[in-house]
Amino acid sequence: MFDKRKIINDPVYGFITLDHPLVLKVVAHPFYQRLRRIHQMALASLVYPGAVHTRLHHSLGAYHLMCLALDELKRKKISITAEEEAGAKVAILLHDAGHGPYSHALEGLLVPDVHHETMSLRIMQHLNEQWPGELDEAIAIFTNNHPKKFLHQLVSGQLDVDRMDYLSRDSFFTGVSEGVIGYDRIIKMLTVVEGELMVEEKAIYSIEKFLMARRLMYWQAYLHKTVLVAEQMLVQVIKRARLIQAPCHDTLSFFLNSRNEVIDDDELLNNFCALDDEDVMMAIKVWRQHDDKVLATLCRCLLDRNLLKIRIQANPVDPQFVIEKKRAVEEQLQISESEADFLVFTGIAENTIYNPQDERINILFKDGTVKDISEVDNPIIQQSMAATVGKHYICWARL
Amino acid sequence: MFDKRKIINDPVYGFITLDHPLVLKVVAHPFYQRLRRIHQMALASLVYPGAVHTRLHHSLGAYHLMCLALDELKRKKISITAEEEAGAKVAILLHDAGHGPYSHALEGLLVPDVHHETMSLRIMQHLNEQWPGELDEAIAIFTNNHPKKFLHQLVSGQLDVDRMDYLSRDSFFTGVSEGVIGYDRIIKMLTVVEGELMVEEKAIYSIEKFLMARRLMYWQAYLHKTVLVAEQMLVQVIKRARLIQAPCHDTLSFFLNSRNEVIDDDELLNNFCALDDEDVMMAIKVWRQHDDKVLATLCRCLLDRNLLKIRIQANPVDPQFVIEKKRAVEEQLQISESEADFLVFTGIAENTIYNPQDERINILFKDGTVKDISEVDNPIIQQSMAATVGKHYICWARL
Amino acid sequence: MFDKRKIINDPVYGFITLDHPLVLKVVAHPFYQRLRRIHQMALASLVYPGAVHTRLHHSLGAYHLMCLALDELKRKKISITAEEEAGAKVAILLHDAGHGPYSHALEGLLVPDVHHETMSLRIMQHLNEQWPGELDEAIAIFTNNHPKKFLHQLVSGQLDVDRMDYLSRDSFFTGVSEGVIGYDRIIKMLTVVEGELMVEEKAIYSIEKFLMARRLMYWQAYLHKTVLVAEQMLVQVIKRARLIQAPCHDTLSFFLNSRNEVIDDDELLNNFCALDDEDVMMAIKVWRQHDDKVLATLCRCLLDRNLLKIRIQANPVDPQFVIEKKRAVEEQLQISESEADFLVFTGIAENTIYNPQDERINILFKDGTVKDISEVDNPIIQQSMAATVGKHYICWARL
Amino acid sequence: MFDKRKIINDPVYGFITLDHPLVLKVVAHPFYQRLRRIHQMALASLVYPGAVHTRLHHSLGAYHLMCLALDELKRKKISITAEEEAGAKVAILLHDAGHGPYSHALEGLLVPDVHHETMSLRIMQHLNEQWPGELDEAIAIFTNNHPKKFLHQLVSGQLDVDRMDYLSRDSFFTGVSEGVIGYDRIIKMLTVVEGELMVEEKAIYSIEKFLMARRLMYWQAYLHKTVLVAEQMLVQVIKRARLIQAPCHDTLSFFLNSRNEVIDDDELLNNFCALDDEDVMMAIKVWRQHDDKVLATLCRCLLDRNLLKIRIQANPVDPQFVIEKKRAVEEQLQISESEADFLVFTGIAENTIYNPQDERINILFKDGTVKDISEVDNPIIQQSMAATVGKHYICWARL
Repeated sequence: MFDKRKIINDPVYGFITLDHPLVLKVVAHPFYQRLRRIHQMALASLVYPGAVHTRLHHSLGAYHLMCLALDELKRKKISITAEEEAGAKVAILLHDAGHGPYSHALEGLLVPDVHHETMSLRIMQHLNEQWPGELDEAIAIFTNNHPKKFLHQLVSGQLDVDRMDYLSRDSFFTGVSEGVIGYDRIIKMLTVVEGELMVEEKAIYSIEKFLMARRLMYWQAYLHKTVLVAEQMLVQVIKRARLIQAPCHDTLSFFLNSRNEVIDDDELLNNFCALDDEDVMMAIKVWRQHDDKVLATLCRCLLDRNLLKIRIQANPVDPQFVIEKKRAVEEQLQISESEADFLVFTGIAENTIYNPQDERINILFKDGTVKDISEVDNPIIQQSMAATVGKHYICWARL
Repeated sequence: MFDKRKIINDPVYGFITLDHPLVLKVVAHPFYQRLRRIHQMALASLVYPGAVHTRLHHSLGAYHLMCLALDELKRKKISITAEEEAGAKVAILLHDAGHGPYSHALEGLLVPDVHHETMSLRIMQHLNEQWPGELDEAIAIFTNNHPKKFLHQLVSGQLDVDRMDYLSRDSFFTGVSEGVIGYDRIIKMLTVVEGELMVEEKAIYSIEKFLMARRLMYWQAYLHKTVLVAEQMLVQVIKRARLIQAPCHDTLSFFLNSRNEVIDDDELLNNFCALDDEDVMMAIKVWRQHDDKVLATLCRCLLDRNLLKIRIQANPVDPQFVIEKKRAVEEQLQISESEADFLVFTGIAENTIYNPQDERINILFKDGTVKDISEVDNPIIQQSMAATVGKHYICWARL
Repeated sequence: MFDKRKIINDPVYGFITLDHPLVLKVVAHPFYQRLRRIHQMALASLVYPGAVHTRLHHSLGAYHLMCLALDELKRKKISITAEEEAGAKVAILLHDAGHGPYSHALEGLLVPDVHHETMSLRIMQHLNEQWPGELDEAIAIFTNNHPKKFLHQLVSGQLDVDRMDYLSRDSFFTGVSEGVIGYDRIIKMLTVVEGELMVEEKAIYSIEKFLMARRLMYWQAYLHKTVLVAEQMLVQVIKRARLIQAPCHDTLSFFLNSRNEVIDDDELLNNFCALDDEDVMMAIKVWRQHDDKVLATLCRCLLDRNLLKIRIQANPVDPQFVIEKKRAVEEQLQISESEADFLVFTGIAENTIYNPQDERINILFKDGTVKDISEVDNPIIQQSMAATVGKHYICWARL
Repeated sequence: MFDKRKIINDPVYGFITLDHPLVLKVVAHPFYQRLRRIHQMALASLVYPGAVHTRLHHSLGAYHLMCLALDELKRKKISITAEEEAGAKVAILLHDAGHGPYSHALEGLLVPDVHHETMSLRIMQHLNEQWPGELDEAIAIFTNNHPKKFLHQLVSGQLDVDRMDYLSRDSFFTGVSEGVIGYDRIIKMLTVVEGELMVEEKAIYSIEKFLMARRLMYWQAYLHKTVLVAEQMLVQVIKRARLIQAPCHDTLSFFLNSRNEVIDDDELLNNFCALDDEDVMMAIKVWRQHDDKVLATLCRCLLDRNLLKIRIQANPVDPQFVIEKKRAVEEQLQISESEADFLVFTGIAENTIYNPQDERINILFKDGTVKDISEVDNPIIQQSMAATVGKHYICWARL
């Protein structure tokens, strides 16, 4: 009677509707279903127990916002063809498909030097070979080679549906109510002028709020000190396991033991798409019994949520303090100085609120002028916020 | 079996519990029940149809937050006696009892030169005579004459339960989701040092978010241009009615026609406490048939939500523009220049995000230091925000 | 004259969009704007302080659900013309326009023998004269004279958008979370077979839940005993005022003092559309000083929320108990027996969960069969629930 | 070692506070932290992508409701000692600690003949040995050997905090809004008479709603046909793997390959507490490459969400239909009839709304009488609902 349609319950938006054949095909693909096994917020659930939602859920949500945004633009008589619409939807569905286990936490470590967006593109290209040409539009949009620039901006820009969804979703699942943004108001105010995405003047306060919510979520959730220490412990686990060539099952060991030179290698892609959070977590479960004290300690502590201590401060950590903590650990565990590096370490957590130089959020005024959000009257977002804020941290074992 | 207790359903917080005899007595008093007939957000419902909630509902909500805050402080071993607790609760219940019809919109106009807090105090004193001495604590707290300064700060300060409730409640009823604040997190982080209210370091982002939400609600709701024009029309109605001594029923006419000199006058108090939004709205309904063109026009337009036009801008309005608009109205309605003043007028809407000079929000750091929210590392709240932002507006009839 | 599109913030659904010229014209009409001054839940706010939302807000909400339902049906290839769509939207916007002050509470009393739907129709006809023929479709749909029967069923049926909105909205504003229904799921499952509205099999549990939520809201909110007593006091006020011809302003007095024979009378319509909750509440405020003890007592008690006592029971009230209570009041107030009837009275509150005889909720099964919701496997809704449940109550003054 | 108080963000209730030393110790224990790795709703996330919340989160939520319930009862002067309070809190925290991987889905299969509550008790006893005697109260309450019977009823009864939390939480994370219950209203209405837990008369409709919500959640979520087929596939995977002794890592292989006779065996407990969803999911990931066609097919289909077909009906499945489906699969995969049993199978899904014979929900009326919820006036819950409803299903491969 009517076309095939799937309706998915989403606690954040109510219902998400999938009704384009290509969209349905992409979602059913094993490479997409794999995203069920990658947490959206890596180890943040150690602080926010509700934050166990998945990359699959996030990408469905971003897809939903893309549908709303495209509908809104079409209502405003912006020309968008059916192919472009499907392309934008597929591009957003797959924009994060290239994330590996624990996404950002292990980015660049498991697959050295390969950014997740590169891998997402590789996956799109693979599907485009499997279904010849069907992803041409999606790829053009994703890589910003599409003549309608605003389509790319919706997928990846200062005000894209990716950010709108992850802020909404992460604040929903963590319960950090202050992170809530007015995604529906912003979407209703979107428009396009000369191919560029803009927001109408009325949405100024919602945009400011959006940027503030992002700042708050960074420091309160993504870079929360307990999340930070847990994710850094995960990094040490992988580094240590690679160093001592700790045994694990085949898929993970492909990434831990070999050197991967070329990313267009089919073997790499297949192995990558077989890999998810489960592989890493399972290895950690096995390694907690490993003979290597450092590896076993890190794994056991991570599993039992018995985390290293962490201190965060504006200034660099006093080297003397680091030395003391290392000494203590060396003695206690009877390990070498280089081994202690895995249990006592420092770093910098960084975040930028908004950098107008980098990419703009265009506000369209009623008189037709366009200003960046940092240039409106009495802005909250100011030049001073363009600077990256770095916080120094030190983590150490307190066995 | 157990003490008398009333449980009230509140869509914002779930349930509000009244269980102290004095609290129950205050709530049952006609002077308190009158707050059912005063809208919390005056005419904002012309823009946000859900925003028809009442001062009674707000004051119950603020009372609820006071209960949570006091419980939290007691859990942190801050000494608070049962009398002080009841006093703080009664003070917050009655803090807005002195609001007249359409509260802020007509403040200082119906009862010239009397601030609503003065009237709230007068009501507390009246009840304190009726129930001798039972409101002594409440009055001391309300007037900042109580030795435990933090009790007053909870009732009236930069971070009081009044603001926490009105932001939460107004954002709930308007549906402006970006106005949501983390009241529960802030309350959990409250503490007292040397008699002063503080918030723990962990709440920095929630506090920033709270100040941003306030800013957003001001410009998006309280000073929304359509709300502004409607409330300014209401002001013109009252001014015009007083000028031409338009007839109305007794209670309102007491305030429109007489000169009220002394506020300790019992007659004034009784008349004031008989007056609410209904009196004004009913007069408007009657006056729409009045012979005076100006009054009738304003009343009809207000009732039918056929509002004056409004323009808001950063700079003062061009006087020539005002003259033109007045001319047009004079001709159209065949009225004098002075009459046109009621249908074409200018003004300034002002708001300040946060003025650290004025009153501080103290952040207590783990090392015991105390800083103002504008002095923390990488603050959002900066000196530059202390300035009052004024926006110029002009309203004119477009008949 | 009107903006092309209006977006209204609604805390229940997020945003409501008005974009059809006729819809915008209807909403801007004074007869529609009057609904701002009629509470959706009459005096329920005496129990649920948040329940001060208006008929205007409800009708906007029902309109929003109508938009969703029509979109859904069109997606399922049900033929609906643009005129029918606008007609259905206008019909639902105005379906309650004929409600008088305090809607159901005073139904049939202020305008004797005229049901509010008759008055809604009268208003539609009036607008149809003012804008010749523009409401033809709306009237055909509203009066069930439209060949596409499902359009009427969406406006008024066992599963119409009216009920879906008032349950959602009333549970939102009261804070009675158990009243929440899955309106979005039900709407997604709507379909039309041979002109009849149906719901797909998948929605069975949502429909059952919907009927249960209605039952719950009736007994917990609409017929809550404190709401009941307050609304019955309001009835007594009007009856008493009419009996003793208590003076009030013109509009109300038209309904209190005259006999209104014919409903197509333009005078009646104009007077009716000038009348709202404010007129009645203002009269009550004036009458609390009236010489008539009965009227003054009722009005004062109502205003100060010092309500009569009420008892609800399954069986009729013992006549002896009624007599005793009357005696007590007669003595206390020194009033006659017939006067005491206004302060001591009995009645029956009735509700029916679902009467399959009356009107059906059709469930469409995958194999094409259609069953009533009471005929599915293991139904919750059974024949035994078709009976009207009546509860007896007595109210009496406890001065 | 531990902070005095821990505050955990919960999107369902806002904040959960842990402040008793024993509670903090239990939560920090590896046996409790293991619950992070067991999904609350097994494979329901294949239908409801948000439903990935964990047993740890549920047990924290149930603990929170227990705190509220105990506070409420104490406010009603029910005597509860500090020890009993801590005992009840620990009992509810650990009530589900004995769940194995994918909880109900694999109950009785991985550890044959051992109910998860038996295992929970075993864990409590283990901790009670580790911290001598500290869990005495908790164990007495959990096993219903405590003289204050209502404490056990709060942990495990028709109206326990376990059910209140899982309904609230599961409806939150699935987004099935109709499953929402009024847990706060029910808790406010709890009381104890002669040691038995009761609810006050006012809560009747909330209780009915609670039972209806449970029914809805069973058929719409827990026994949703797609969830059912996925979980049955998981069962087949385990059965097949055990039959063919498919290799897997040590912990899981302990349960797949050995016969476990005695549950007081320490080896069993240690192995059990090392086992979680990850072990099973990782094995499935490995087995999808297994030589056994049946096992590999099931694993691959489960991982890629390419599920068997399922049909649900009121009557038993026609045996001829089963035979046909088996034949098809045998031919297609070239497998034996007994192998086809893993890919084509039938079963019955059962649920009971409420069985008054089994355990009662006592309603306390104002006059002191106590009735079961099925015995109140005009009950929704009737004898007819005591019967277990069984639905027959058949699952078959559609390769």
